[in-house]
Amino acid sequence: MVFKVSANSAWRVTRTLWLLMLVSLSVSICVCRASSIQEEDSAMENIVTEKKVEESHRQDSADLLIFIMLLTLTILTIWLFKHRRFRFLHETGLAMIYGVLVGVVLRYGIHVPRDISNTTMSCHVNARPATLLVNISGKFYEYTLKREIGANKVNDVQDNEMLRKVTFDPEVFFNILLPPIIFHAGYSLKRRHFFRNMGSILAYAFLGTVVSCFVIGLLMYGCVLLMKQVGQMGGDFFFTDCLFFGAILSATDPVTVLAIFNELQVDVDLYALLFGESVLNDAVAVILSSSIVAYQPQGDNSHTFEVMALLKSFGMFLGVFSGSFALGVATGVVTALVTKFTKLRDFPLLETALFFLMSWSTFLLAEACGFTGVVAVLFCGITQAHYTFNNLSPDSQDRTKQLFELLNFLAENFIFSYMGLALFTFQDHVFNPMFIVGAFVAVFLGRAANIYPLSLLLNLGRRNKIRSNFQHMMMFAGLRGAMTFALSIRDTATYARQMMFTTTLLVVFFTVWICGGGTTQMLSCQHIRVGVDSDQDNPMSITEGPERRSTKQESAWLFRIWYNFDHNYLKPILTHSGPPLTATLPPCCGPLARFLTSAQAYENECQLKDDDSDLILTDGDINLTYGDITVSTDASGSHTSSGPAFAGAATSDDLDRELTYGDHELVMRGTRLVLPMDDSEPPFTDPHHRLRM
Amino acid sequence: MVFKVSANSAWRVTRTLWLLMLVSLSVSICVCRASSIQEEDSAMENIVTEKKVEESHRQDSADLLIFIMLLTLTILTIWLFKHRRFRFLHETGLAMIYGVLVGVVLRYGIHVPRDISNTTMSCHVNARPATLLVNISGKFYEYTLKREIGANKVNDVQDNEMLRKVTFDPEVFFNILLPPIIFHAGYSLKRRHFFRNMGSILAYAFLGTVVSCFVIGLLMYGCVLLMKQVGQMGGDFFFTDCLFFGAILSATDPVTVLAIFNELQVDVDLYALLFGESVLNDAVAVILSSSIVAYQPQGDNSHTFEVMALLKSFGMFLGVFSGSFALGVATGVVTALVTKFTKLRDFPLLETALFFLMSWSTFLLAEACGFTGVVAVLFCGITQAHYTFNNLSPDSQDRTKQLFELLNFLAENFIFSYMGLALFTFQDHVFNPMFIVGAFVAVFLGRAANIYPLSLLLNLGRRNKIRSNFQHMMMFAGLRGAMTFALSIRDTATYARQMMFTTTLLVVFFTVWICGGGTTQMLSCQHIRVGVDSDQDNPMSITEGPERRSTKQESAWLFRIWYNFDHNYLKPILTHSGPPLTATLPPCCGPLARFLTSAQAYENECQLKDDDSDLILTDGDINLTYGDITVSTDASGSHTSSGPAFAGAATSDDLDRELTYGDHELVMRGTRLVLPMDDSEPPFTDPHHRLRM
Repeated sequence: MVFKVSANSAWRVTRTLWLLMLVSLSVSICVCRASSIQEEDSAMENIVTEKKVEESHRQDSADLLIFIMLLTLTILTIWLFKHRRFRFLHETGLAMIYGVLVGVVLRYGIHVPRDISNTTMSCHVNARPATLLVNISGKFYEYTLKREIGANKVNDVQDNEMLRKVTFDPEVFFNILLPPIIFHAGYSLKRRHFFRNMGSILAYAFLGTVVSCFVIGLLMYGCVLLMKQVGQMGGDFFFTDCLFFGAILSATDPVTVLAIFNELQVDVDLYALLFGESVLNDAVAVILSSSIVAYQPQGDNSHTFEVMALLKSFGMFLGVFSGSFALGVATGVVTALVTKFTKLRDFPLLETALFFLMSWSTFLLAEACGFTGVVAVLFCGITQAHYTFNNLSPDSQDRTKQLFELLNFLAENFIFSYMGLALFTFQDHVFNPMFIVGAFVAVFLGRAANIYPLSLLLNLGRRNKIRSNFQHMMMFAGLRGAMTFALSIRDTATYARQMMFTTTLLVVFFTVWICGGGTTQMLSCQHIRVGVDSDQDNPMSITEGPERRSTKQESAWLFRIWYNFDHNYLKPILTHSGPPLTATLPPCCGPLARFLTSAQAYENECQLKDDDSDLILTDGDINLTYGDITVSTDASGSHTSSGPAFAGAATSDDLDRELTYGDHELVMRGTRLVLPMDDSEPPFTDPHHRLRM
Repeated sequence: MVFKVSANSAWRVTRTLWLLMLVSLSVSICVCRASSIQEEDSAMENIVTEKKVEESHRQDSADLLIFIMLLTLTILTIWLFKHRRFRFLHETGLAMIYGVLVGVVLRYGIHVPRDISNTTMSCHVNARPATLLVNISGKFYEYTLKREIGANKVNDVQDNEMLRKVTFDPEVFFNILLPPIIFHAGYSLKRRHFFRNMGSILAYAFLGTVVSCFVIGLLMYGCVLLMKQVGQMGGDFFFTDCLFFGAILSATDPVTVLAIFNELQVDVDLYALLFGESVLNDAVAVILSSSIVAYQPQGDNSHTFEVMALLKSFGMFLGVFSGSFALGVATGVVTALVTKFTKLRDFPLLETALFFLMSWSTFLLAEACGFTGVVAVLFCGITQAHYTFNNLSPDSQDRTKQLFELLNFLAENFIFSYMGLALFTFQDHVFNPMFIVGAFVAVFLGRAANIYPLSLLLNLGRRNKIRSNFQHMMMFAGLRGAMTFALSIRDTATYARQMMFTTTLLVVFFTVWICGGGTTQMLSCQHIRVGVDSDQDNPMSITEGPERRSTKQESAWLFRIWYNFDHNYLKPILTHSGPPLTATLPPCCGPLARFLTSAQAYENECQLKDDDSDLILTDGDINLTYGDITVSTDASGSHTSSGPAFAGAATSDDLDRELTYGDHELVMRGTRLVLPMDDSEPPFTDPHHRLRM
């Protein structure tokens, strides 16, 4: 079944296919146009009613079709790039380019005459109602509020129906497209390397993002003051606006860089640092920006400094973050319990559906409670990966991974192609060269203020230093993407917000194209090792000697308590792995422990291996230090392949070894915690102590 | 890794989980309520603006959460049912029950005060605009048209915000939830048995549905006339309304029955007849109903009979059906070509994404062109299954199947739980006992008028008769489901439509619960064979002798031309299987044939087996007639497993046989068409003729 067409002919055929796709794209655009014209014709008549709604639906379908075609085109092109190993352009960058092209066509290629059916009415209500009942010639119609329009834009709004139509409700990005992206990020976090660098990641994500936000905010405030001096500013721009701008520009999204890292198998620690930081700083940036928006002093001048309002904003940040975190984790835990205590695994379809619904309900629950759904979904994803994933049937494990991979792919490329489109179809752009230059400088300095000082501080604590070439790479990989865009498009009502939106788009374009495209050059320029197999990096680390082993020591202080708790209590409660609770809980909790421990956990007791292997930091070192025990843990954490293998292995050679070390046999069964904290400790002095800690 | 918890404890634990789910459900309802109350509070203030929109979003999240919780509950319960082998209630029936329960709670358990923020305005415009710009105290707001409200309902609308909120836009069902269901039906059609009974299926689906539509329409018209006499009718109800009612009630959806058939492995022919009919009659009913709505005579009285209008409606039926069919097939063909001529199969994610996007674009394209998206999607699904599926990588084959299986599951259960909810939360119900009784009688008689006379006619042509117990089973399995509901909820503006909607709901409930629940009883009552392995039914058929063989003869007349064309031209063009085009096309088309034939097709030439085995009607008979050749084709049509197996098999025993029949070895390689048309033909008279036809 090998498919043998020469690359050359594939290229030729693909060119044909492109043409075909372009034709279909232009067809879909023509359809849009045709239905617009029909719309106008029917508007001439008096009886419009149902036809109008129908036309509107056709128009919507055609608009969506443009995006589907764009994505299809992107997929085909990206296949070609992958096929030919072009790495200078990622699919997201490509989606943007196609988006820009279609945006240009829609903007300048098609002129749709003014839609005369919009009507401006005046009324005297003291608040804007969410629903409007309009009595038109004796019939009542229900209208729903869509948005506020600046008084000077009223005529523009009516101007180009076509452009208005391809503009989606900004909340779509936040409520439909971002959640699967963020969930997938959490669900696919490489946990072993993430936890190994947890301290540094948390520092970059929390401290770094706040620093970056304030640095960008202050620089932009300087820029804004300068612009006011020069007379370049056409509207209000307050300090809170600057800070908000700083917050949204602090959410990094190095999806392009990480894809290349993955392909080239770049150093896993660098990967973990970048990925972990980008995942968590999205969450920080979202809540930071909403806290800044919530900053409202009581006085007449709503943009002065006030301690109470600041504290309130800070309290809100903490409250919303911890609330979202708790909700996300809670849903993950519930899903883990449900999948543990039912035999849903016999029906992968039901299991996958439950997993999907529970994960989605996290988002809805968080939004309904006033927390941030996107953040809740992130922590839900991490929890699901850490606990629930182990309870799923192998079939469902594949299905859920593939499902969210697909959703992530589609949503991400949709957002990026929409970005390209928005550059030309968005109607309220405010291009201000001075502001844009200022923003680029600020983004650069903000990222620098995040990475370099923090790395310096972290290196004081880390013995496995974050070397300067890693720092430069992290600096370079500060791409802005979907989250920044979604945050900036949410509100484009005021002049300040419109200028921000325009500038944000340009920052995203620049970083994705230039920084994303230059990743391979940057990697070779910085002499960063590629081709590192993430599961094989331990043997290599032996050659590095002291530097390597200290990594574990560095991360252990933060980690030991958590790991103990997770392994002894959480894993046994939520999954089938780990030691039985009857062994770890105090005797007074006996009945509860028996209730919560699954039969499988007792079976697991006979195995040396559990599913935590991805959390055991020093797999390699076990081989090294206790050479003749060879606890060759499987780093992938795969539930299926490892189980039987170990059950089998326990019968032959391992049994002999267990008999040799007969007295600590029972201790080893639990595989409590294998973290050799101190390298100077002589081997085999006290096996009980070493293995039990 | 065997999970050993006794069924008893599983039951206990699940009960706990149920309680947990119920608690979370009530939490979500409380959240709804809380936000409604907050909404009211904030409405008291003068400055509502952003808070209002935010609250509305929270409310929406909470509403959606109710459905997610309902689905989760359904999944857990259905797991329990499957676990305990309860077959009297299908997941869709269960989803309805939970929907009804929550509907009762929402309706009677929660009182939400009148939302005072709705405002009624009067204006003098001669048409209703799609967009409204309202000048409120100097600021402009954009409002979009949502729906028309009957003058007498204006106060009701404002009455219960809660109920209004959980009512989705009816177009959601048609544009978001139905397409994946219908696509999945097409994609999972068991093609071998479908094509074997194609003639009968087409007869039931086209002729039968039209008959059923008119029988129900006429009976209902009689009922309506009677009601007018008695004075039971509170509004207009025209003959076209009756026909429309007939059309929507003619779409059968025996998902419950088919699930049981699948589980019990009921006779494959019966399964194919029922499934094929239900899939196709959905398409017929959709277009029939829209044609009936389009019937508009020119005269003053818009409900008289007029030949021109009738012809126009009929023309529209044909046009929309063939247009939708052509579009669906076209997109399928394009996808097949793209997957054939690119090496996308190296990247399953891209391949799956492309497949998904192309299938979705069918729907959008059809809707944008004014055809019916749901119908286009159905034929796209069938085309994708028949051609594209063979080009996909094994990984993508699994992914696409699982993806659409999941989407189908979620959408279907969502619709059914919404149906349950709508019984109590829909605000314009018109319960008219006389109409309801009339509808039940009409549905019963309409189904009878479809099945029995048509079966009689078909049995004249079929030698493998549709026996009376099969007919009774088909009669019994005329469940109404998602399509009927989606069609009836689309327009509930008039009195007639509201009465139809209410009655439709009751018909769906009754058929799903009573007919669906009684399937196993009915099967045993009608002595219908269960436990038939669909791939093993041929050996059994040998005992049936002449009756069996005649089936092929019966279906062959319709089928031979299509099969020849498909196998010799379409399959080679669109997939890697089948004979190379260079062999089937006339020599003048040489260059084109070489261009379109993939390298793999030439390789395939060396294999006895191709992917068409699912279309070869008489696998068993080959074994029977040419007993010593044993072309044991794999009925599943699996691309992966069968290939190597045959490559291997060709080396041992089969090779000897091929040597024995050395002279027709080359002919057999192509596996052209193995349809022994006439049983009386003596074996081995002319192998060339027999095998090549």
